[in-house]
Amino acid sequence: MAFRLTILGTSSALPTSDRYPTAHVLNVHERLFLIDCGEGAQMQMRQHKIRFGRINHIFISHLHGDHFFGVYPLLSTYNLMGRKADLHLYAPAPAAEMIERHLADFDIHLGYELIVQTVTGRSMKLILDDRKVEVFSFPLRHRIPTYGYLFREKSAERNMIKEKIAEYGLSVEEIGRARKGEDIIREGGEVIPCGEVTLDPRQPVSYAFCSDTGWFKKLSSYVRGVDLLYHEATFGDDNDALALKTGHSTARHAAKVARDAGVKRLLLGHFSARYRSPVPLEEEARQIFPDSEAAHEGVTYDIS
Amino acid sequence: MAFRLTILGTSSALPTSDRYPTAHVLNVHERLFLIDCGEGAQMQMRQHKIRFGRINHIFISHLHGDHFFGVYPLLSTYNLMGRKADLHLYAPAPAAEMIERHLADFDIHLGYELIVQTVTGRSMKLILDDRKVEVFSFPLRHRIPTYGYLFREKSAERNMIKEKIAEYGLSVEEIGRARKGEDIIREGGEVIPCGEVTLDPRQPVSYAFCSDTGWFKKLSSYVRGVDLLYHEATFGDDNDALALKTGHSTARHAAKVARDAGVKRLLLGHFSARYRSPVPLEEEARQIFPDSEAAHEGVTYDIS
Repeated sequence: MAFRLTILGTSSALPTSDRYPTAHVLNVHERLFLIDCGEGAQMQMRQHKIRFGRINHIFISHLHGDHFFGVYPLLSTYNLMGRKADLHLYAPAPAAEMIERHLADFDIHLGYELIVQTVTGRSMKLILDDRKVEVFSFPLRHRIPTYGYLFREKSAERNMIKEKIAEYGLSVEEIGRARKGEDIIREGGEVIPCGEVTLDPRQPVSYAFCSDTGWFKKLSSYVRGVDLLYHEATFGDDNDALALKTGHSTARHAAKVARDAGVKRLLLGHFSARYRSPVPLEEEARQIFPDSEAAHEGVTYDIS
Repeated sequence: MAFRLTILGTSSALPTSDRYPTAHVLNVHERLFLIDCGEGAQMQMRQHKIRFGRINHIFISHLHGDHFFGVYPLLSTYNLMGRKADLHLYAPAPAAEMIERHLADFDIHLGYELIVQTVTGRSMKLILDDRKVEVFSFPLRHRIPTYGYLFREKSAERNMIKEKIAEYGLSVEEIGRARKGEDIIREGGEVIPCGEVTLDPRQPVSYAFCSDTGWFKKLSSYVRGVDLLYHEATFGDDNDALALKTGHSTARHAAKVARDAGVKRLLLGHFSARYRSPVPLEEEARQIFPDSEAAHEGVTYDIS
């Protein structure tokens, strides 16, 4: 029942000697989702023992290099690895055309199907509906079209009370119904209420990714109540004007979104190279939202 | 009087958890030359404390991704760093058009001049003639147009014998002449032979880069007598047929070139991911050319 996030990069546009550009891997019940793919993401995945051959879905927030430059070499690596499985890439336009030009430039002929889905729209949209998880896109406010992503685990099935199975002599079919939350109605009219033989399932888990973005009021409504919010904090209060000018957030902005959205935890990232340590940014955020933490590369955050 | 090479990557097309794709930095008297630029080269340069803002010349062997994918993010990083100095890039066609398309795709407007010089030809060519060093290109044999590069320090000036300066009361102008190897002729006809007041300069140093290439007889003539030869050794004897098929060399091929060219030292690299350790490749090469060594990432090899 994994729901965990591995951070591969915490730098903003300029990488540093210890910070790679943005890339996250979310593991939801062993489905791996890659979120943004800055330069070196494949090396970071190798380094942190992520079996990235299993990634079938890549979500790109926007087409700035520090979120996208790693896509090209990754597509090439998959080809060299003999990949056959379809690869789905979600990104704003014109990602599909850019990738096509790039592949032509390098005379690369993919041996697998690359399906690019253009992310658009001014509101929340369901873009992937899987048996275990739903993924939504929502607009951010940056210098070019940019989207955040929300991953929400689907409601888990109810948990059977083992002794009740024997007590009522439940069939496989009856167990299936009860786990889905239906009452069991037997021939002859006997009713076994679902609540009699099952317990409530655990709460489904959710994760939202917001980078890059300036602060805007509506953002908190998109990420309401998530278990973990990753939000960019390129700057601190000392560079408030620069954040505004460049379409980025300060740690305080990120914390305001977290507080207004009532999320459980906030993870900060996308730090400007001018901050050698993210601790001051973490402290600024905590003044507003105590459960704030600076993301660290190579660390896996368990969300479940 | 630096003449040293830092290896940033030793992988072939597929990087591994401890091998980056090809990129070298050659320091000739504090001029930094970047040779090939695979993904992550800028991160490797930061990691190994190379002041890459000072690089003004980039040499690209060929347009396969593992030798070129790092160029795009590096150009972008230079822009973000506010670079103003001209940047010269030497590469086979159509690098200039590819870079142009890429910059347009990402709407990047360089604040510095990027001068792309197309490398062509079927023989050795002088492509850079600097006060301290000459750089030559020469054709390799790979699946697409590919070039090797030879860096040759210019003849150093002769060394003055300090006591002789006082003994003869040499002027600054006379010292300049003697260091250039000219005899000093004074008014009145007095001749001071250059060999009387100076010692022979040390031998100029040279480095050659050969990757990617299959073996061919003429290669050794291009790299004759260099102090250090870097030569790809993608495979070992066990994959001789694959080397031939893919336009690559085995360690034995590299050693034959080194031996036939009479070089001083051979450095092997571009190892296939199938060799977890390069030691067997090193051993194969040493059977033919004893001064062979597998390149290690982050290590600086002093050539002077």
